[in-house]
Amino acid sequence: MTAPPADLETPCLLLDRARLERNCARMKAKMATLGLALRPHIKTAKCVEVAALACDAGRRLTVSTIAEARFFAARGFANIVYAVGLVPAKVGPLREIALDNGARIAGIVDTAAAAEAVAAAAAAMDFELPLYIEIDTGDGRGGVLPDAPELEAIAAILATCDGVAPAGVLTHAGQSYRCHGVDEVRAVAETERDGVTAAAARLRAAGFACPEVSAGSTPTATHAESGDGLTEMRPGVYVFGDLDQMALGSCRYDDIAVTVLASVIGHNRQQGHLLIDAGGLALSKDISAGEFLDRVGYGWLADIDSDRAAPIENLYVAGVSQEHGIVRGKDGGAVDFDRYPVGSRLRVIPNHVCMTAAAYDRYHVLTGNSVETWSRAVGWY
Amino acid sequence: MTAPPADLETPCLLLDRARLERNCARMKAKMATLGLALRPHIKTAKCVEVAALACDAGRRLTVSTIAEARFFAARGFANIVYAVGLVPAKVGPLREIALDNGARIAGIVDTAAAAEAVAAAAAAMDFELPLYIEIDTGDGRGGVLPDAPELEAIAAILATCDGVAPAGVLTHAGQSYRCHGVDEVRAVAETERDGVTAAAARLRAAGFACPEVSAGSTPTATHAESGDGLTEMRPGVYVFGDLDQMALGSCRYDDIAVTVLASVIGHNRQQGHLLIDAGGLALSKDISAGEFLDRVGYGWLADIDSDRAAPIENLYVAGVSQEHGIVRGKDGGAVDFDRYPVGSRLRVIPNHVCMTAAAYDRYHVLTGNSVETWSRAVGWY
Repeated sequence: MTAPPADLETPCLLLDRARLERNCARMKAKMATLGLALRPHIKTAKCVEVAALACDAGRRLTVSTIAEARFFAARGFANIVYAVGLVPAKVGPLREIALDNGARIAGIVDTAAAAEAVAAAAAAMDFELPLYIEIDTGDGRGGVLPDAPELEAIAAILATCDGVAPAGVLTHAGQSYRCHGVDEVRAVAETERDGVTAAAARLRAAGFACPEVSAGSTPTATHAESGDGLTEMRPGVYVFGDLDQMALGSCRYDDIAVTVLASVIGHNRQQGHLLIDAGGLALSKDISAGEFLDRVGYGWLADIDSDRAAPIENLYVAGVSQEHGIVRGKDGGAVDFDRYPVGSRLRVIPNHVCMTAAAYDRYHVLTGNSVETWSRAVGWY
Repeated sequence: MTAPPADLETPCLLLDRARLERNCARMKAKMATLGLALRPHIKTAKCVEVAALACDAGRRLTVSTIAEARFFAARGFANIVYAVGLVPAKVGPLREIALDNGARIAGIVDTAAAAEAVAAAAAAMDFELPLYIEIDTGDGRGGVLPDAPELEAIAAILATCDGVAPAGVLTHAGQSYRCHGVDEVRAVAETERDGVTAAAARLRAAGFACPEVSAGSTPTATHAESGDGLTEMRPGVYVFGDLDQMALGSCRYDDIAVTVLASVIGHNRQQGHLLIDAGGLALSKDISAGEFLDRVGYGWLADIDSDRAAPIENLYVAGVSQEHGIVRGKDGGAVDFDRYPVGSRLRVIPNHVCMTAAAYDRYHVLTGNSVETWSRAVGWY
């Protein structure tokens, strides 16, 4: 990796194309090995060029906002799952996006009440929306338990009501983000697969159609040892990687493809810290990797012109305010002010790249010595 | 306050105009009482309609990004301070904005090295930039201490180098955000004023010009008992208020003017929580008010059609993922699922509105029964 051009304005997002391509190829190969379709969750990247690299021939995508559904459907991604619990008010926008682009856009529900309300809204528009039943395989956020009585009640609504059609079952074992070590992640991957395939089997045994059996998060997709009974997986953050995923064992440090380019804007020798122009907005206030790694704060640091084989060992972003990042030495170590003069630039390695990237409307994509700009689909509508 | 229109898409930002106007009027009156100019920090609102209500006749503004400087200078705000440590790479954009709009845009520096580098960059463009010297009055983020030898060294550069001119001294007592109670805030306001006026006195005694003596944060501006020796104050978040400012005593609950409108998207009766479509992006991951208040999490909740004389007592946003908020009962209390059906809407009262608003490009402004849209100047350039 060469240094980014000197005229890039800071803070900005850098994306290393070679690493991105390697990450995408690795997950495609993994899904091929498991015999599963890949439906990347594009909430991380929100970028059509990344989606094109990430998708297999099926060009399936998972999205988290109406804005993403609209953006990708208009750009030739015609098989989309909006994987946030659907409510009647969002049926109209999804219908419009589907019809305008000849796309199949499916939603998810996890209660009979939601399924009925969505069905009524869609039927009133003379539209039919495919719906997955969300299954809780241990995360405890949304979804019905595989053995809950409500599972069949929802399936009955999808099978019989106008306005909806059964798409299958879907789960996200978000507890994989709380694992310590690859063995725990592997166990969660099995729990995820067991739960969602059990739900599918139960539906089929009761005579309901269950075309898709969808699972996956970046940790579980990376470490799953079997895809039996599944049809697809939906990892997202693997395209970029971050400190969180590194700590979970989903990537190595030198797989991390997105960094924040920042300028040193101050030397506070009295307090012993550098100030950079990447603060709480540019980095986000996500400190999730701190659960796994010592002295992460709001991110690690790297020199701009290194190959980033290693981060700058003794520095981290210890604090943020809106537009200021405070860079301190780890464990009270001194900052080498002369090495980082005011106006010099650093990269920040993010904790959780989904949150960090959210503040930006574009990537500066580095390929060898060239830079291009890729847009992000920001906002909700 | 009446309910927002049923067709507003969620999540979105609601702004109560009556409360905004009251907050702006209160701060203008306070500054008039102290005999000070008001230079609102528009990094919170990033909105020209808010700036017009917030400014006094001098139409002075403080900004935190080049994007804000550009946006406001183009809209008739011709006296701007970019209050983040200036580096040479940002001189060009500030020059262009100043010349294109006939605006005075000043920067800040806190080291002799930065002052020299900025002077050289500006002189090379045949431009002269007014610079404040940033003073550290106890926050410990940036700034020189009032009695530091470097203060006069910086002043000498501003007095003699081409490319720069002395604008005065400026401080931000950010430690006011860590106060517990109004008495502590009052003490910090005095510390802030003492420090920055001491620096001004020292410069003047040494024969340097020091036209402006600028201080202020929302807590210190709200509770300052004297403006003696100051020329202006730069509070920002007071225009909207939030739980953080309420806890600090800078506003009352019913002064809070910005809330996030969210939809209930799930009932997890097994886990005992509601899901809403406002998660870590829509609310931010700022949990600062949790230092002062029990059970704040990522925000309190209010009914959409109440006058919000009080929040919903027993609920709060206990957790977030990217697009999901998890609403739980405080202290293990039960959620009344029937009162909040899937598809119903709630307001979230933010912890720290600067961070929460950052994800949005507009406000939906409620004035009685009408709604209009005001834009935000997002991004950095």
